[in-house]
Amino acid sequence: MVNPFYKNHGPVKISEILNILKLDDLKLSSNQEISDVKDLVNAQKNEITFLHSKKYENVAKNTKASYCITLKNLNHILPKNCIPINVDNVLVSLSKITSRFYPTSIEDNFDDTILPIEETKFKNTVKYGRNVLIGKNVSIGSNCSIGHNTIIEKDVSIGNDCSVGSNVILRSTVIKNKVKILDFCVLGKHGFGFFPINEKNLRYPHIGIVIIEDYCEIGCNSTIDRGSMSNTIIGKNTYLDNQIHIAHNVKIGENSIIAGQVGIAGSSIIGNNVKIGGQAGISGHLKIGNNVEIGGGSGVIKDIPDNSKVMGYPAKNIRDFLKGIKWFIKAQ
Amino acid sequence: MVNPFYKNHGPVKISEILNILKLDDLKLSSNQEISDVKDLVNAQKNEITFLHSKKYENVAKNTKASYCITLKNLNHILPKNCIPINVDNVLVSLSKITSRFYPTSIEDNFDDTILPIEETKFKNTVKYGRNVLIGKNVSIGSNCSIGHNTIIEKDVSIGNDCSVGSNVILRSTVIKNKVKILDFCVLGKHGFGFFPINEKNLRYPHIGIVIIEDYCEIGCNSTIDRGSMSNTIIGKNTYLDNQIHIAHNVKIGENSIIAGQVGIAGSSIIGNNVKIGGQAGISGHLKIGNNVEIGGGSGVIKDIPDNSKVMGYPAKNIRDFLKGIKWFIKAQ
Amino acid sequence: MVNPFYKNHGPVKISEILNILKLDDLKLSSNQEISDVKDLVNAQKNEITFLHSKKYENVAKNTKASYCITLKNLNHILPKNCIPINVDNVLVSLSKITSRFYPTSIEDNFDDTILPIEETKFKNTVKYGRNVLIGKNVSIGSNCSIGHNTIIEKDVSIGNDCSVGSNVILRSTVIKNKVKILDFCVLGKHGFGFFPINEKNLRYPHIGIVIIEDYCEIGCNSTIDRGSMSNTIIGKNTYLDNQIHIAHNVKIGENSIIAGQVGIAGSSIIGNNVKIGGQAGISGHLKIGNNVEIGGGSGVIKDIPDNSKVMGYPAKNIRDFLKGIKWFIKAQ
Repeated sequence: MVNPFYKNHGPVKISEILNILKLDDLKLSSNQEISDVKDLVNAQKNEITFLHSKKYENVAKNTKASYCITLKNLNHILPKNCIPINVDNVLVSLSKITSRFYPTSIEDNFDDTILPIEETKFKNTVKYGRNVLIGKNVSIGSNCSIGHNTIIEKDVSIGNDCSVGSNVILRSTVIKNKVKILDFCVLGKHGFGFFPINEKNLRYPHIGIVIIEDYCEIGCNSTIDRGSMSNTIIGKNTYLDNQIHIAHNVKIGENSIIAGQVGIAGSSIIGNNVKIGGQAGISGHLKIGNNVEIGGGSGVIKDIPDNSKVMGYPAKNIRDFLKGIKWFIKAQ
Repeated sequence: MVNPFYKNHGPVKISEILNILKLDDLKLSSNQEISDVKDLVNAQKNEITFLHSKKYENVAKNTKASYCITLKNLNHILPKNCIPINVDNVLVSLSKITSRFYPTSIEDNFDDTILPIEETKFKNTVKYGRNVLIGKNVSIGSNCSIGHNTIIEKDVSIGNDCSVGSNVILRSTVIKNKVKILDFCVLGKHGFGFFPINEKNLRYPHIGIVIIEDYCEIGCNSTIDRGSMSNTIIGKNTYLDNQIHIAHNVKIGENSIIAGQVGIAGSSIIGNNVKIGGQAGISGHLKIGNNVEIGGGSGVIKDIPDNSKVMGYPAKNIRDFLKGIKWFIKAQ
Repeated sequence: MVNPFYKNHGPVKISEILNILKLDDLKLSSNQEISDVKDLVNAQKNEITFLHSKKYENVAKNTKASYCITLKNLNHILPKNCIPINVDNVLVSLSKITSRFYPTSIEDNFDDTILPIEETKFKNTVKYGRNVLIGKNVSIGSNCSIGHNTIIEKDVSIGNDCSVGSNVILRSTVIKNKVKILDFCVLGKHGFGFFPINEKNLRYPHIGIVIIEDYCEIGCNSTIDRGSMSNTIIGKNTYLDNQIHIAHNVKIGENSIIAGQVGIAGSSIIGNNVKIGGQAGISGHLKIGNNVEIGGGSGVIKDIPDNSKVMGYPAKNIRDFLKGIKWFIKAQ
């Protein structure tokens, strides 16, 4: 699939790639053109991929990529069609190469393709407020309403029967049908992902997007960051209250309910029918099962299996939590 | 009192009400017109009310309403003037009926009655910034200032000597005198109230409003949701810091001080002279007394009596909290 | 140094100062003009200062100020050149006098000096979006970009190579070079500082500013308040995620990383190379050392020495925290 949000500035000659990685001394048999950068599974011939850990051995040995940014001690895993390019830090190198192919995915500068909605084809098909700005190649379905001062940046797509509030910014986002986005939300800015380097951190590119499925509602002043390599997804009929922060790559299932001021850190996966109380926080890279209930103010720092009720910091089974505060309940 | 914010779209014939509730088979003696929906105490003749729990027996037996949405096993409580309409889920049914009378209370679409302030009567009486938008029937007292890009939606009323910042949205809100609302606040959006139903939740109507009493200050990026059946109220001379979320139906007393990033869940009542430290959270439906101090970061999950100091998660008497961390203090 | 943000409305005759403090009965030998109000160290001849605690004895005895607002029992500390003015509450009195010299530092009303950027000298030197507003005496370096609906208030200064997002408000702020400010931030509003007084709190003036050093990034919907007497400072190459609140007078060092929804209360000092996890809170007036790591969701209520890792509420050494939850980890 072509990602409409980030134009591929390739192909890039392998000699330029080596130059970016400061590996000019490396001699390769040909100065091939590389057309894209992808993960081990999706990369094709004439594309470059990356391998930074032995745990991806199974997919690595079948990759179709022509080149792979990797570590010397992982070279033996790669198939013959795939030429290893050895570096000290795979992810930093990947970040530099991805930035070469997708330079705009690094930045979050304002969209300079926008026009006032009155000057676009939506003038007669959308109900809109004052000072609404629409970027290039935006698509908006039937029966939608867009509030005052809202900015829909280029390539964003909105389905049918959606209501977008006032002062909203939508960027790198796909909104399905019957969705409500309330005032002051920012969807699709890049995630908080970078390599910490003294004097000047190195931002890594975010070529993922935000997807909001049918019937969702997103509360005021919420932020949902787009993914880095994968997407950030809010499942069907999931409701978010005000002032919620959803970090990059998070995926939330269907029919979930998330109360005010909750924060979900990067790459966590939340199941279906999950209820999360106000101000709860969920650490990154966790898996929260289906039908889970998380008490308000909880701090979740480990995976939670299906059908659990948890509470506390760190969040634990709610019966254990209540036992731990038995004195507390008695004291009432 | 007529609520100026939500127009009553009644009267509604009782046959239409039965149709909405899918009770067309129910035979009633007349096809009366119902003029409004109210609670047990306030409902009058020719109006409809609701009863969903035995604990309201005392007020139910004296209601003046002509009809009552209720459960079969509560029918015997109602007086003779009040005809029961039996349903499976009283609150869901109530929600559907209220939506029929007050359809605009369900939505939070942008106000399409607004005009640039230059085209209103406030052009010469208010000090204003650029791109200020004013809805129909707004009232603004003397000596007020309204910042850039701010939207004052229809029927909102602002007293004398108020300062509203830039990029503020005021909806379904009454602001008294000498109040300061800082930048990026959203006041009066509907609360996070709905019936969770797979595939498509059912939002319930919010016909309450937000009331900000004299001398209050509301910090930047705060959200104060309007009430569902009652109002959300911030008492006189109460100050809120930045990024605070106040949910629907909350009532806060006078002279209280609430620090940054605090969240107060729906329907809780906070007393006078209360101090709440930063990031504290207060669960829904609680009663916090007068002169209470709640430490920063606390999670309050039970009522707190007058004159208490509490801290922790769950929040407890501060002496107990400090005893529990004696090792912690010693270790310094 | 002259503070460009707050015009000194002095000089003020000492008789007027006594009148403001309701000390008209106090007889002084001359009706001198006072040119400014400063702290004990910086105050010069013909200026007024304040002393409210014996712990400042060492600097107080060498002050060059001509007058000092103080308590009767501290008079003996002051040198001969400095005439004591005795009051009941030094800080309240100071606040009133500072407000007389710097009346605009009390308010956060919108900037009425702004013009659309198209009508300013930045028309051809800055890349800008729609509806950008620029105050008087703003300076913006080369190669900067400013998003839609953003407001740069008077006297703000922005260095070279900066990107300011859409819907940002910058007030009383100095931004150095290569800084990114993301959408919906408010920088430089006054802090949450006032004297609680029933019926009507007394706000104290905020004559400090916000300084953002080179290479910083500030996430969406964040608020950074300006200082009261000192400045709020974000050190070089420090990154803040979304929805962060930094209160007045906070100073953060270099190369620090602060995740989403963190709150730092007034006057705390954070070191270099500090990492703070999401939703953590730091109480006011603390000192967090260099190279400290604070776990997500922690509540820090005491100073943290250099090179520590802490977690929990209250935050403690991470080994102790993990020991305390050993059962928790085993239960996995």
